Amino acid sequence: MNDDGRSEAWREVARRARASGGIRIASLLRDEPARAQRLSLDAAGLHLDLTRHRLPGEALDALLALARASSLESRRDAMYAGEEVNFTEQRPALHVALRAPAGAAAGAIAGEGIAAEVAATLDRMDRFSEAVRSGEWRGATGQPISHVVHIGIGGSHLGPQLACEALIDHAHPRLRFRFLSNVDPRAFDRAVNGLDPATTLAIVASKSWHTLETARNAQALRRWFAAGGIGHGDLHRHLVGITANLEAARAFGLAPESLFPFRDWVGGRYSLWSAIGLPAMLSAGPQRFRAMLAGAHAMDRHFAEAPLAANAPVLLALVSLWNTLALPGATEVVVPYSDALRSLTAWLQQLQMESNGKRVGRDGAPVAWPTAPVVWGGPGTDVQHSFFQALHQGTGVHPVEFIVAVPSGPDPEGRGDALLASALGQREALLHGRSGNDAPAAAQGAPDAAAGQAAAWLAAHRACPGNRPSSLILLDRLDAERFGALLALYEHKTAALGWLWDIDSFDQWGVELGKQLAGEIEPLLDAARELPAQLAPDLRALLERIRATRASRG
Amino acid sequence: MNDDGRSEAWREVARRARASGGIRIASLLRDEPARAQRLSLDAAGLHLDLTRHRLPGEALDALLALARASSLESRRDAMYAGEEVNFTEQRPALHVALRAPAGAAAGAIAGEGIAAEVAATLDRMDRFSEAVRSGEWRGATGQPISHVVHIGIGGSHLGPQLACEALIDHAHPRLRFRFLSNVDPRAFDRAVNGLDPATTLAIVASKSWHTLETARNAQALRRWFAAGGIGHGDLHRHLVGITANLEAARAFGLAPESLFPFRDWVGGRYSLWSAIGLPAMLSAGPQRFRAMLAGAHAMDRHFAEAPLAANAPVLLALVSLWNTLALPGATEVVVPYSDALRSLTAWLQQLQMESNGKRVGRDGAPVAWPTAPVVWGGPGTDVQHSFFQALHQGTGVHPVEFIVAVPSGPDPEGRGDALLASALGQREALLHGRSGNDAPAAAQGAPDAAAGQAAAWLAAHRACPGNRPSSLILLDRLDAERFGALLALYEHKTAALGWLWDIDSFDQWGVELGKQLAGEIEPLLDAARELPAQLAPDLRALLERIRATRASRG
Repeated sequence: MNDDGRSEAWREVARRARASGGIRIASLLRDEPARAQRLSLDAAGLHLDLTRHRLPGEALDALLALARASSLESRRDAMYAGEEVNFTEQRPALHVALRAPAGAAAGAIAGEGIAAEVAATLDRMDRFSEAVRSGEWRGATGQPISHVVHIGIGGSHLGPQLACEALIDHAHPRLRFRFLSNVDPRAFDRAVNGLDPATTLAIVASKSWHTLETARNAQALRRWFAAGGIGHGDLHRHLVGITANLEAARAFGLAPESLFPFRDWVGGRYSLWSAIGLPAMLSAGPQRFRAMLAGAHAMDRHFAEAPLAANAPVLLALVSLWNTLALPGATEVVVPYSDALRSLTAWLQQLQMESNGKRVGRDGAPVAWPTAPVVWGGPGTDVQHSFFQALHQGTGVHPVEFIVAVPSGPDPEGRGDALLASALGQREALLHGRSGNDAPAAAQGAPDAAAGQAAAWLAAHRACPGNRPSSLILLDRLDAERFGALLALYEHKTAALGWLWDIDSFDQWGVELGKQLAGEIEPLLDAARELPAQLAPDLRALLERIRATRASRG
Repeated sequence: MNDDGRSEAWREVARRARASGGIRIASLLRDEPARAQRLSLDAAGLHLDLTRHRLPGEALDALLALARASSLESRRDAMYAGEEVNFTEQRPALHVALRAPAGAAAGAIAGEGIAAEVAATLDRMDRFSEAVRSGEWRGATGQPISHVVHIGIGGSHLGPQLACEALIDHAHPRLRFRFLSNVDPRAFDRAVNGLDPATTLAIVASKSWHTLETARNAQALRRWFAAGGIGHGDLHRHLVGITANLEAARAFGLAPESLFPFRDWVGGRYSLWSAIGLPAMLSAGPQRFRAMLAGAHAMDRHFAEAPLAANAPVLLALVSLWNTLALPGATEVVVPYSDALRSLTAWLQQLQMESNGKRVGRDGAPVAWPTAPVVWGGPGTDVQHSFFQALHQGTGVHPVEFIVAVPSGPDPEGRGDALLASALGQREALLHGRSGNDAPAAAQGAPDAAAGQAAAWLAAHRACPGNRPSSLILLDRLDAERFGALLALYEHKTAALGWLWDIDSFDQWGVELGKQLAGEIEPLLDAARELPAQLAPDLRALLERIRATRASRG
């Protein structure tokens, strides 16, 4: 379809969104007979329920028309075919190739060369993981590894940490994991606190090998090893690298057998499936890691094959897009009711906001609609005792995404059931609200004469308006396959939104400037350096204050 | 001033906010000579810079007029005087009394009885902490304590955890802390993983003793102790309680000397300063805990005494209120550049969103303006590699609060300087942006003939618009006093906003309904129970699906 068709489809969706203010979700649930069938579905072992949004059936039709007018299917197919969907950097985005079964989809997805390279890296990861897990891999003093310190930031941190936590039921009993990302020296101290260098393995993950935080933390760790008696010659037994810059890693002290390659057609926020996932494989074992890949691949196939109207990532994207228009200022609240998924929110923040936090379209002009909403949240039930108050009674309306797994077994304290029931209870409360008239009379504390008025006043404060949208993603159980499918679901949701907005979801130009300015400012913290004359007055005043603070400490 | 005056002041602020769309922060910094003097200030050891908002001087005047019309000072004074500022529950909010120096402010603040009770509880906490820290306190087998497991949720969790982390430089070398909040059994397993019951001390913090998560986790922990050979008779040597329900705690197995009282005039989200802060005192010692109280008290005095126009919590509140009107849909992004403050964001979420996530005013009618914005964020530099992309180049504008401490000393890798420079660099980047025309020609990848056009196209994708608001809170160093002052700053900002919006910042009616519905749903997870006929069809279908999943597992 041509661009006029796309603009017209956008206008139609926006028109319906503007008119949606008075919609009651409960009425849609009652009055639309096909609603459950259209807005709930099963894919790759996940059950999605998107029925509880202020989205009438006709608006869903308009959204599907927009998806077609945006050529969503051909853009998706272009990604799978290895075309340069990262159009500002002229690169493909081949994370789906990382989880394609060996042989099966190689030709179709990304060419023989890539498939062979992916398989070879996975095999090396397998062998290395088995050596460390079995105790065959020994440190410089002949002891097996007990602790793994993973150094990386952004996608080189969030994915591996999340996967280690999510697969905790399969964690190797001898291996403990620490994740070091922040350049703050206190983060380093915390990461190595109590560890014995002789039984510690460090993984340094940096595509360029020069990421500021990772490079400095790696240097500090090399110093820590040296102080603990592990010199340069033994470093390769305690430090492995995951990088695209093999030369720099070798210069740092790593042996070729301790290096895992990572290619520039894998974006950082899509890199868990590559060698970057090594900590997860070390913890949960090669078999579970491959099960995670298989789960993601099952979602890849669903995304590639299901019709738009029954395609889980597409529906998730369309509902998200609808909410940006129907609920201006709405954010996306992600609440996994699972301790094992407590880092999912941080991973999703990067995935969605780094991918789609863009304001210029493929034509080089500003996009006409709001792009990536703010993604935030935290683990249930914890957050019920924190920001949920505002979700129920605040002036803003923020759709909540409940991610819930059926608990695995009986428990003397019924904690698994309480967890699941809490999620379902909150979901009902958001939808149905309450009038507030049910307060016990004793709680109303009003003098008898004015009792009626006081009761009404208190009811107004106790009332919850309800009609607050939510989504539900239900996992029969939290296992490696379903975890992989869950992440792939969100990856494809994010890509679909990028194509609907016609932006480049795979670049990240916005992160450059701050790094560059930090590099210019860092030397100016040194009181021996003269401050440049052209410095803005307020930055100059701040630097002088910081210098004075340091000088006063002597 | 009467209500008409307040309404008029609101309208004036709103009018100016609507007209603020074209404001350039850089122009305000250049053209307003008094700006730095009016919008930056020092209070209780903290330096605040609020100059980088789209807030002209005249609008600040209008905001200060609104503060006066809202009787901000007399409402503040009423809180200090112990009046029932929690008007829907007819209770005072006396967290300031918890950090008043013994004797000094007792009469003025909250009456002799409360001051004496506060002092007595602190003294008991001191003695207990010293006994555990010195090793005098022994477990059932005669060994000193090595690990503390704190069980609590919401305010009974977020404050103590944050304080233990923030005061890490003073952590007791023998004691390690774990925090258990979530009812998910995996959270429990993680909390006790590797611990020896004989050297473990548990703290159970629950005002009512019946908070669902805390009660079930306490039961599970009692079971864990029993399985480890610590029976009911020895439980009081391994388990202490912080509660207002002393009777229930005694019935659970606790001895009077193992119970610390906690009163209903302390709200959960303001409770760190009470016995709830026990983990922080155990970790950092009584002296540092009292230094934290002293820092908070210094901010209390500043808030009580400084004129509105030079009052740090008031200015922070007014800027926040301005942004809700001038930038509809804006959230508040909190970015502490400090590993030790990594949990500050979660604490602030509860403080601000639970306090002010309300929609009904003191008169019982809906408030006319948006209340508590969404608060989210995460530690710098980590989040620079995640959602900062959207802050620089997204379509939404979200003010960023940078919290920065001057690094404590030289470091071979320059990590402290890199941390500080990163914060300052991001702040400059948000303000000044870039045109994007500075791309190296080689990166432009365009054929020569169309080079100019291609360069302009790429520049559009690389450009950052700038003019994005930010605040800075600078700490000369992160110590116990300044940490206490920082939290008190935010507490008073939150209260001030509540008074400006004329809502009750101290109740939390919105959290009741979900709990109640969860309690009704939990028994229905049992397949032996018949589902009630009146159940909504979609909830029924979901419960049937969950039951079927469980049945299929056998």
